[in-house]
Amino acid sequence: MYKLKEIAGGVCASEGFYADGIAAGLKPNGAKDLAFIYSDGLCDIASVFTTNKMTAAPIRHFETKGEFRTNFILLNAKNANAMTGKAGIADIDEILGEMKLRNPQIVNPLMSSTGVIGVRLPKEKIISASLSFDLSSRNAVAASEAIMTTDTYAKTIAYKVELEDGNSFHIGAMAKGAGMINPAMATMLCFITTDADVDAKTMQLILDEVTPLTFNAASVDGDTSTNDTVLLLSNRKSGAFDHAAFKDALYKIMLHLAKLMVADGEGATKLVTYRVDGAVNNRDAEIAAKALSNSLLVKTALYGEDPNWGRIASTIGASGAMCDEEYLSIWFDDICVYKKGEILFDETTEAQAAEVMKRDAFGITCDLGLQDGSFTAYGCDLGHEYVKINADYRT
Amino acid sequence: MYKLKEIAGGVCASEGFYADGIAAGLKPNGAKDLAFIYSDGLCDIASVFTTNKMTAAPIRHFETKGEFRTNFILLNAKNANAMTGKAGIADIDEILGEMKLRNPQIVNPLMSSTGVIGVRLPKEKIISASLSFDLSSRNAVAASEAIMTTDTYAKTIAYKVELEDGNSFHIGAMAKGAGMINPAMATMLCFITTDADVDAKTMQLILDEVTPLTFNAASVDGDTSTNDTVLLLSNRKSGAFDHAAFKDALYKIMLHLAKLMVADGEGATKLVTYRVDGAVNNRDAEIAAKALSNSLLVKTALYGEDPNWGRIASTIGASGAMCDEEYLSIWFDDICVYKKGEILFDETTEAQAAEVMKRDAFGITCDLGLQDGSFTAYGCDLGHEYVKINADYRT
Repeated sequence: MYKLKEIAGGVCASEGFYADGIAAGLKPNGAKDLAFIYSDGLCDIASVFTTNKMTAAPIRHFETKGEFRTNFILLNAKNANAMTGKAGIADIDEILGEMKLRNPQIVNPLMSSTGVIGVRLPKEKIISASLSFDLSSRNAVAASEAIMTTDTYAKTIAYKVELEDGNSFHIGAMAKGAGMINPAMATMLCFITTDADVDAKTMQLILDEVTPLTFNAASVDGDTSTNDTVLLLSNRKSGAFDHAAFKDALYKIMLHLAKLMVADGEGATKLVTYRVDGAVNNRDAEIAAKALSNSLLVKTALYGEDPNWGRIASTIGASGAMCDEEYLSIWFDDICVYKKGEILFDETTEAQAAEVMKRDAFGITCDLGLQDGSFTAYGCDLGHEYVKINADYRT
Repeated sequence: MYKLKEIAGGVCASEGFYADGIAAGLKPNGAKDLAFIYSDGLCDIASVFTTNKMTAAPIRHFETKGEFRTNFILLNAKNANAMTGKAGIADIDEILGEMKLRNPQIVNPLMSSTGVIGVRLPKEKIISASLSFDLSSRNAVAASEAIMTTDTYAKTIAYKVELEDGNSFHIGAMAKGAGMINPAMATMLCFITTDADVDAKTMQLILDEVTPLTFNAASVDGDTSTNDTVLLLSNRKSGAFDHAAFKDALYKIMLHLAKLMVADGEGATKLVTYRVDGAVNNRDAEIAAKALSNSLLVKTALYGEDPNWGRIASTIGASGAMCDEEYLSIWFDDICVYKKGEILFDETTEAQAAEVMKRDAFGITCDLGLQDGSFTAYGCDLGHEYVKINADYRT
């Protein structure tokens, strides 16, 4: 059996990966807003992008390139470079062209952006600030800080994976999240680097299996953005790989980051795990679980710490999933408030459920009582802070 | 040509209809919470109910009855009689049985409820309070007040329809709305009475045509409830009817009430009309328009009076409707901020659009620039008051 050990180093935990973050003046408060990830060997790439049809320029730029390997990604916050048309793509080419001129070892550079939609990139600021990049820096924390928007803390994680044969590889990641986090991915960026000896095709298969259970199971506000990106890069330097171990490590990394994103959702004070069992199939369970994590009425009840189970039942009923009140059961952690048509909600269970809801993290479990379909989604509450952040985002 | 004249009288505007509202002690503040509508002739019925699978007991009770005519509806607020199983239906039978014993002229009585989910009806309170009903009252305002939950004002409207041949009929209505108003109907009740000489089948056809363009085009929070009901009753006393005139009057009545519901949505300060033109078909336009009216990011930007057109573009992109940034145009009332791929958003148009957003009612128009598909949806902003109302709803 393999072993996973959590280690420091984020996107620089793997051999041959370098990163840093600097302040280029895009954020008016002088915080870090420009970063790079560099590998001293060419990387295979796997990717998942937003399903939004108004894809941002960096994604269009990536998608025109066909199959390729890269060793450099430039990242910026505060400007999404979305709805900027062909000019937005030309801006990327110009900026990355400068990077290559200065650093001839850069091959097929990529760019990834997050921030306000519909404003051209401040090219000159980015180009002149990037003069201070040192490609031998291994400052993963600074890089992860530079991609933050409304995140309240930087999000990184890394594992060393020790295989039974004595070989090992590393996998590390950073992500930004906060608003517009939807079950179909959202205003999130995630960059995962590994020295595992895995090719693009295998990585893509694994990434496509893991994404629906992690980032695509997380919701902050049900909105989907123009820039959502997960990039997974392997420079294969360790020479080691094991399919099961790699998938397990990737799942744990992506689930950890997905939960952090929800817990740090705009104005969120609670991380809620919605588990739906007993659906006619997994797809129906997913529909019901995601309806719960996206319902405004459920989210505001969470914020009010009000065990309003009627809203949970109503939301499942409205979701489109097959269900019947006579077979449904509902729990707040281990407190059952409704069991197969019988209301167990009385003064005692109400008080117990209200206690559960005071926790920073808890579970709402719904058994539809029909077949074996199951899915787990992750959501947060919605309170005054969300309104405040989003009413004033641009200003 | 026919003429529509707005008149007073709400659900009592038509000949032979009576109504009243009283305080039965369901609302702790002593406000009216129990009402009836009575007709001195049997009525044909057309209906639209929630698509929620957890339908409340009153709807299940109605649906078991097959084809029938009625002359009495009992209405209550504060308790939805939902998730109450067979006992909830038995409660209705017991309450309505008492009404019939007392008033032998009542035939096939119905009940309709709104309020908290998952609590049995206080039968005794309702039965004893209803002793004071006077079936000859024509107090439409009191009836409409009794069905209010978080509504801030009662919602009624009525028309006299004058036909070219000198005949005329009346049509009047009352509704309650506020939260959980979704494009697929929601925590709304609407009762429409008419003395037009129209049978159940014709009324149902017309109601099914008008509902998608009115109540099903309105959204407060994207949640759909267990109790949503539109009932249309005709006692045919006027002897007059004209299909086009009746449909026009019904459309105007339902659109008026739908707009009032959105404008009086929980915590709402603005009524926004989302018009999507140029979609590949009407269905695609509807998908895009409803995505806008339901987007949390758009709704909070409205509250902040921030003309964040990027969120509008992103929401359309995420909606699933066919679209392309190069063909899209966006207006706030008559201020164009984005035209077929060109950003027209500068200091001048930003200030103008921000002025538009200060209005109580304004329009956001998006031309997808593809084909002739068009749809209009109605929505509101989401601010601190919504969070406050819904975090504390049960308490």
